Amino acid sequence: MGALIAEDLLFPADAGTRAIARDLHAAVRDLPIVSPHGHTDPRWYALDEPFPDPAGLLIVPDHYIFRMLFSQGVRLEDLGVPTLDGSPVETDGRAIWRRFAERYFLFRGTPTRLWFDYTLQNLFGLHEPLSAATADAHYDAIAAMLATDAFRPRALFKRFNIEVIATTEGALDDLKWHEAIRQSGWDGRVVTAYRPDAVIDPDFEGFDANLDTLGEITGCDTGQWAGYLDAHRKRRAYFRSFGATSSDHGHPTAETANLANGEAATLFDRIRRGAGDPGDHRLFRAQMLTEMARMSLDDGLVLQVHPGSWRNHSPAVMQRFGRDKGFDIPTRTDYVAALKPLLDAVGVEPSLSVIVFTLDETSYARELAPLAGVYPALKLGPAWWFHDSPEGMRRFREMTTETAGFYNTVGFNDDTRAFPSIPARHDVARRVDCAFLAGLVAQHRLREDEAHELAHELAYTLAKKAYRL
Amino acid sequence: MGALIAEDLLFPADAGTRAIARDLHAAVRDLPIVSPHGHTDPRWYALDEPFPDPAGLLIVPDHYIFRMLFSQGVRLEDLGVPTLDGSPVETDGRAIWRRFAERYFLFRGTPTRLWFDYTLQNLFGLHEPLSAATADAHYDAIAAMLATDAFRPRALFKRFNIEVIATTEGALDDLKWHEAIRQSGWDGRVVTAYRPDAVIDPDFEGFDANLDTLGEITGCDTGQWAGYLDAHRKRRAYFRSFGATSSDHGHPTAETANLANGEAATLFDRIRRGAGDPGDHRLFRAQMLTEMARMSLDDGLVLQVHPGSWRNHSPAVMQRFGRDKGFDIPTRTDYVAALKPLLDAVGVEPSLSVIVFTLDETSYARELAPLAGVYPALKLGPAWWFHDSPEGMRRFREMTTETAGFYNTVGFNDDTRAFPSIPARHDVARRVDCAFLAGLVAQHRLREDEAHELAHELAYTLAKKAYRL
Amino acid sequence: MGALIAEDLLFPADAGTRAIARDLHAAVRDLPIVSPHGHTDPRWYALDEPFPDPAGLLIVPDHYIFRMLFSQGVRLEDLGVPTLDGSPVETDGRAIWRRFAERYFLFRGTPTRLWFDYTLQNLFGLHEPLSAATADAHYDAIAAMLATDAFRPRALFKRFNIEVIATTEGALDDLKWHEAIRQSGWDGRVVTAYRPDAVIDPDFEGFDANLDTLGEITGCDTGQWAGYLDAHRKRRAYFRSFGATSSDHGHPTAETANLANGEAATLFDRIRRGAGDPGDHRLFRAQMLTEMARMSLDDGLVLQVHPGSWRNHSPAVMQRFGRDKGFDIPTRTDYVAALKPLLDAVGVEPSLSVIVFTLDETSYARELAPLAGVYPALKLGPAWWFHDSPEGMRRFREMTTETAGFYNTVGFNDDTRAFPSIPARHDVARRVDCAFLAGLVAQHRLREDEAHELAHELAYTLAKKAYRL
Repeated sequence: MGALIAEDLLFPADAGTRAIARDLHAAVRDLPIVSPHGHTDPRWYALDEPFPDPAGLLIVPDHYIFRMLFSQGVRLEDLGVPTLDGSPVETDGRAIWRRFAERYFLFRGTPTRLWFDYTLQNLFGLHEPLSAATADAHYDAIAAMLATDAFRPRALFKRFNIEVIATTEGALDDLKWHEAIRQSGWDGRVVTAYRPDAVIDPDFEGFDANLDTLGEITGCDTGQWAGYLDAHRKRRAYFRSFGATSSDHGHPTAETANLANGEAATLFDRIRRGAGDPGDHRLFRAQMLTEMARMSLDDGLVLQVHPGSWRNHSPAVMQRFGRDKGFDIPTRTDYVAALKPLLDAVGVEPSLSVIVFTLDETSYARELAPLAGVYPALKLGPAWWFHDSPEGMRRFREMTTETAGFYNTVGFNDDTRAFPSIPARHDVARRVDCAFLAGLVAQHRLREDEAHELAHELAYTLAKKAYRL
Repeated sequence: MGALIAEDLLFPADAGTRAIARDLHAAVRDLPIVSPHGHTDPRWYALDEPFPDPAGLLIVPDHYIFRMLFSQGVRLEDLGVPTLDGSPVETDGRAIWRRFAERYFLFRGTPTRLWFDYTLQNLFGLHEPLSAATADAHYDAIAAMLATDAFRPRALFKRFNIEVIATTEGALDDLKWHEAIRQSGWDGRVVTAYRPDAVIDPDFEGFDANLDTLGEITGCDTGQWAGYLDAHRKRRAYFRSFGATSSDHGHPTAETANLANGEAATLFDRIRRGAGDPGDHRLFRAQMLTEMARMSLDDGLVLQVHPGSWRNHSPAVMQRFGRDKGFDIPTRTDYVAALKPLLDAVGVEPSLSVIVFTLDETSYARELAPLAGVYPALKLGPAWWFHDSPEGMRRFREMTTETAGFYNTVGFNDDTRAFPSIPARHDVARRVDCAFLAGLVAQHRLREDEAHELAHELAYTLAKKAYRL
Repeated sequence: MGALIAEDLLFPADAGTRAIARDLHAAVRDLPIVSPHGHTDPRWYALDEPFPDPAGLLIVPDHYIFRMLFSQGVRLEDLGVPTLDGSPVETDGRAIWRRFAERYFLFRGTPTRLWFDYTLQNLFGLHEPLSAATADAHYDAIAAMLATDAFRPRALFKRFNIEVIATTEGALDDLKWHEAIRQSGWDGRVVTAYRPDAVIDPDFEGFDANLDTLGEITGCDTGQWAGYLDAHRKRRAYFRSFGATSSDHGHPTAETANLANGEAATLFDRIRRGAGDPGDHRLFRAQMLTEMARMSLDDGLVLQVHPGSWRNHSPAVMQRFGRDKGFDIPTRTDYVAALKPLLDAVGVEPSLSVIVFTLDETSYARELAPLAGVYPALKLGPAWWFHDSPEGMRRFREMTTETAGFYNTVGFNDDTRAFPSIPARHDVARRVDCAFLAGLVAQHRLREDEAHELAHELAYTLAKKAYRL
């Protein structure tokens, strides 16, 4: 007791297997963090200002936390989640913190609990479980630390031993915070990633205006298909000049298409005139994945596909609080037919790297591992979002390794906006992978020297290789 | 050996984890049984007559048993399953019992085996495995016990330590056995549940006549939409007067709808005139789930949705033996789109409780846990029917806990007609949950004091809270 | 260390459970191999010629191996995979072997690694891990052994302790190698199986000409429905005269149909005239499964259904290298609706045996176990293809046993062309089953004497019974 996070967290119960897991983990626990895909704010690293109060840093922006509290009857207003129309919400950080602390038991068995305890202990040096009884003391202790220089973004970046971190910016972003980081002379490595959903998805708010802006920024004629593609090429080059090694695409499905150029141009015209129907919109998104893959062949950006989330499922919550409020729900996602047009076009190119993620675990063994286990261009992204958890990561390995092997996977993504949780997330992933490898060794399916090599690859090398970092 | 059920049944093999599981189980094994959803016959508690012979009690009515024997070539006639046309079947209980006993090995690895052995040992005090060799002796011993007062329904109810049990009655049922229980002055708590499929599903046999009857019983005009809804309100009130705290809906899919009132009325008229097509029937069932949810907001009944079974898959068996003969087969079931109309209407109401069950385990992690982990009105029913088994319950916890937590689940349902198996079923569930919690403790994902709290919640408190019992 | 395959390979880590698994395995490890479904070449047994060099035997024909190497950027040409147009590929066996050996680490965690190590150790007596460093020595050692009489097909057949093996031949095959085996007087038991895809699937290359040939071979009028069915009957009889006890059907889906005879005849006419559309082709395949089942009722052949593979997913690879090059990808497969017409027709016949396989593991617990657990004619084939692996076989047992039991499964199929790997594959299956049974015993869900009985059934008896061998 005492410690919130035990030395043997997540290791197998069997003593012999546990000892192997411990050895493996000891050899990788202090490796630098490579974070090739995430959503931290580059402004933090640019300005290096102190983080806000404990609730503002750890609760209000964390959809894992407020969705669970909401499911148990707590109003989002009472957690300080801002409304779109500006109607008032709780502003007292301590009150928000107390509401969370009183209900911390709700998170038993969830990864949020592990990440939060890890952060309390390893970042803030707190060793008492969070509860109504400890809420205030913990709040005060954390608030005091956040006010010190040692808890500013750059100091934490170094303390977390981050070798490189990728943020994600929209295609229209001017990357000024990345520019500011560069100008500052600070030596932390922060790169961007190209996320063009707002200029690729005709259903995105303001799509048409976004394309006008894209034309202005690039000097390309985004009123026409060829100019529109050129505009993408220019933005990709611009992003690459700020270290980008990947693009990222959050489509509703994994659908791809490979139209003849004339057809694609006609489709683009129809959509640009506002005359596209829902089928056109879908087809355009599908076509653009293949176009992005072709550009990747030229410029080397790794293509990431993140399909299968039904965004903003509750209109009531969307209307009052906007996007990203915990109401994105996974749906059944097909890959074998959906990816075929893209794979037919570029799937056997060994120089291309397309990383596919899924929220539908049934596709791991049935579709994704068989595809990634044969197409040179295809790699499997790690267990994602709701599945970025001990059971989720275990299922990922159990259902992909036998067909795709370890080397068609790409290491770990923390995929988070929650900067303080990054070490916790990477440590959990390393522990789960070490536990999995230890199980293979204990069953004589792998030699221990191989497990050591693999632990290092999974924790560090594969992410660098796959993302070309 | 000797004992059919070991002390450590279903506990993890690892000694340390097993010790934790044992401790957890010891603290909950004697808690009263709360059975919020099941199908025992209220007549038993009303009349308190002796149960029939061993085969008539334990084999003939148990579809888990006769479906397995049928799959291995035993005719249903030879197991005493009655035919619809009255053509003769086996009536000799001992002969039926022997057929079962000779083939008891077929049940190795199934939950039926565990429930049956538990019942042999703990209810009947028998310690020899059932087989051809022991068939007669076991039959005689059980038959003798069933003839005694200690084995009548009310005595067993007390012996089983049942705090409350819910039966399920159709909307047209007069609840006379519940009335008789009340009149008898017996202090066992038996409540009903409102199951209106026969007056909600236009494909149900006799739907139109059922609606006429519903009108007669309630004095409402069930020829019109408004009167039809009023009739439901009256029946729900009547069921509540016999303790009902829930309604239960066995639809083929999870589809819901939320039509404008005028549209719903028109749809109802069309169906009531017999002019509805299959799409109308589907839409009507979908609409009625939302109507039931709205009534629940008013009267507080918990809404249970049990979708996804293809009933009576074999026409040959249906024609000869009728419904519920083991030929109900699960199908792929979608929830994210299907539940949206209902959730849009009432999903963020914290005072509503909609409990969703599934026969499609792929929906646990992908759809149901993400939905229940954010919508205040939604809770997850336990592993159901074919999945009410050690592996099924383990998968349920592994695939739901990380996203929905424990507190968006509702404890255990035995869901059975098989009264003598109730203690076995609850004990198996408690053991599996304790084993799961012990695994979390052994991996330091949960403290032992938390596991004790949770074991109590899962075995007892959550069912009472979720079902408002 | 030293040994590539440990005594305790694949056994549970927990000492007590491992001891049980060891005992169970010790009792079945030396049982004869019954291989009721596979794809070895009968010519081998007929001619008993030496196998080619190590690469030609172990790498070039193994799609598990070359698909993984291809996924990591190795060209199929460099692995000696022949092109359709005869353009040159690597012919130096040693060069191919070296390319594989250098990348052997890619197979960590895959079943290929286990089978290969097992073969190195137990067939060739090699104890050093394969790598760039050991490539040449291993190559030389294996090449030398392959040149000796002890490594000819018949000698290996005996050494592998194969009691009976089934090959698979197309409906038009003359079975001359089977005839030659018979004429040779050799006492190894090699039987054929009836695989009529080329004369059942209208999308098969040369379907129409195949039907002409079928008519010539049988003397039946395959221009008409009745004659076409008769031709099947004659070929089935001919195959039975060479020991066939089963037919095998590799359809894209599990769809079945049960048309009236007149409708079926009309459909056949349309297809035979080349006037069928894709829907007709699908319906014809569906109808033919039911026809085959009806013939099975007459002649006793076991019907095997292997649905759900999207064949030759990459047109580029198909065009250059042809079929079976690792690009067959599983797809979502439905059984409950798809099998219904066949089951309605013959599903409750206890004398019929239809064995269903799946590449979609989500159907195990949801559809296949519930169906096989009640229909007397239906049995579950073992974990298949990508799932013929330790995790795949474990999931198969975990997801089918509780509902279908063990006795509605049919033992193990090696399903392989890779003759030298047959003992490895059977041993892996036996180990996984013993580990699973040991887990049940350790959790007191099964007595040890029952586990011993079951281990014997799963390793030997069930395959003989189910396939009537």
